Amino acid sequence: MKKIVLFSTIIALSSFASASLLEDAKKVGLTPIPSNKDELTKLIDNPKNPLNKAKIELGKALFFEPRLSKSNLISCNTCHNLATGGVDGVGAAIGHKWTSNPHHLNSPTVYNAVFMDKQFWDGRNPDLETQAQGPMQAEPEMAISKEMAVKRISSMAGYEEQFAKAFGENNITFQKIADAIGAFERTLVTPSRFDTFLLGNTKGLSDKEQEGLKTFITKGCTACHTGVGIGGSMQKFPLVKPYKYADIGDFKGDKNGMVKTPTLRNITQTAPYFHNGAVWSLEEAVTIMGETQLGVTLSDKETNSIVTFLKSLDGEMPSIIYPKLPSVTASTPKPDLN
Amino acid sequence: MKKIVLFSTIIALSSFASASLLEDAKKVGLTPIPSNKDELTKLIDNPKNPLNKAKIELGKALFFEPRLSKSNLISCNTCHNLATGGVDGVGAAIGHKWTSNPHHLNSPTVYNAVFMDKQFWDGRNPDLETQAQGPMQAEPEMAISKEMAVKRISSMAGYEEQFAKAFGENNITFQKIADAIGAFERTLVTPSRFDTFLLGNTKGLSDKEQEGLKTFITKGCTACHTGVGIGGSMQKFPLVKPYKYADIGDFKGDKNGMVKTPTLRNITQTAPYFHNGAVWSLEEAVTIMGETQLGVTLSDKETNSIVTFLKSLDGEMPSIIYPKLPSVTASTPKPDLN
Repeated sequence: MKKIVLFSTIIALSSFASASLLEDAKKVGLTPIPSNKDELTKLIDNPKNPLNKAKIELGKALFFEPRLSKSNLISCNTCHNLATGGVDGVGAAIGHKWTSNPHHLNSPTVYNAVFMDKQFWDGRNPDLETQAQGPMQAEPEMAISKEMAVKRISSMAGYEEQFAKAFGENNITFQKIADAIGAFERTLVTPSRFDTFLLGNTKGLSDKEQEGLKTFITKGCTACHTGVGIGGSMQKFPLVKPYKYADIGDFKGDKNGMVKTPTLRNITQTAPYFHNGAVWSLEEAVTIMGETQLGVTLSDKETNSIVTFLKSLDGEMPSIIYPKLPSVTASTPKPDLN
Repeated sequence: MKKIVLFSTIIALSSFASASLLEDAKKVGLTPIPSNKDELTKLIDNPKNPLNKAKIELGKALFFEPRLSKSNLISCNTCHNLATGGVDGVGAAIGHKWTSNPHHLNSPTVYNAVFMDKQFWDGRNPDLETQAQGPMQAEPEMAISKEMAVKRISSMAGYEEQFAKAFGENNITFQKIADAIGAFERTLVTPSRFDTFLLGNTKGLSDKEQEGLKTFITKGCTACHTGVGIGGSMQKFPLVKPYKYADIGDFKGDKNGMVKTPTLRNITQTAPYFHNGAVWSLEEAVTIMGETQLGVTLSDKETNSIVTFLKSLDGEMPSIIYPKLPSVTASTPKPDLN
């Protein structure tokens, strides 16, 4: 009888602790991806580029469209590969002519990028639609001109009709290409077990994961890694101590030294880490963050506990049917590999 | 009344002509992709590497797996892009370090490649399984060693279980990697309207397409472009007259000057044409074939008629759900971009 009472007490205490932890998580701004479809749509939509089914489908085609690169070989998906966590698995992005970008910047994941306050490591673009215009044109990435992109897409059968359905007018512009891609990217959200926890199901996380979450909060990680994106705001980096791999590349943040906080969602899938992709181990990345941003030396136990929590952020990726893209025609500008 | 009789007579004559054309097509060896599932499975299977669902699914993952390249950036799908007719849309394949292959060879489509007698332009491999081993290791393609490929795949969670399901044993070898990819590729067949015609539905082709088919047969194109693959055998090229773009690259066929006849299925989607990808226009390609292989100068009308028929070979591509690939681990060998 005593044993049963004790057991019940432990359960009750454990539930109480979970409920209290959930309150703490909410207090520091951790916010779930809504499970309600309408709420989610409202959250991910852009009033300047309203979502619709045809636009998302067109955006998917364009996201995988290699003819949007000068060479015919590189698509958005090359660096933001949806099969591998929305990233490319290399330190710095490689583009046209096997060129690394000049600042040795790592490709951020496109999954949940909609929840970032700003886009690019220096936060220079406010949303996914403006972001999408950059890599298409950048010389070390897709290296295509606006004019060439529009010519390529306009020359292929079927696209005109898709643009008409998506935008209510069938003229194809560079902005519409980027807008469609942005619309598709807005749908790339990945609800995780942590979201079920935040939505009130305290069984959504194991005891060890809850312990990790507690460490994550008490150590102050949520100063930057918070919100729906568990990241996404601009922050000073490094803040307290120097970043030990600062010599890789020359990126120093925006003009005020501010760097975009990456999302921690699906972080197990997006190595290597940091703006210059210098670190492959999640444990090392957590340790470095403690040092540079919080000025604390995390114990191995604390680091591992945080990593255990981070693993619960692996989300459910949307199912994507690989598109069938239209054929080039006599009027399609030819690829240029140089 | 007279009109009705005349009309019926025309229909009867037309049906008679279609039936006769169908007989001619069969006589020259044109063969449909079976509509019967069991028949098809029997046709595409390899007794040395029997198909099963788990193997096909694993093969799909590996076909899209960029970690099978030295750089982490190139997968089978890079050059054999399933979104763009199973090809890359450039003259000669571009691989590791943006290197073109030394002979300036064009990537053949992987769709319906199972129907080819041999693989590679010089026919040096007998089947898709042995073929798949080549580009992974080739320096200007994926540039990975057998050992590195096995290490990479073995290090990632989930693959071992998938290999166990596919092969009945969970040890991962380079041959099994290629066998799984081959198994997946065997399923990439694209039945077209022409197949329905060959299966007896003479309405499967329009009158103009039937006229084109007739020209295709009477001009002798079916000497090489026949069988289920409408191509796939080794043939002397050029045969009658020199190939006008022979100076692009140095490929001269196998030791006897024999070159694999490419499939004409989905030919509208696989430009540029010929082993060296020299020609973007299907009309020009047909004209050149008439000259080099048949020694005839096709009139514009004949060329256009043949092209009209070729368009009926656009088939239904299988629906492919883009895979979710496992994450790298601490033991996964790092990418090497050099």
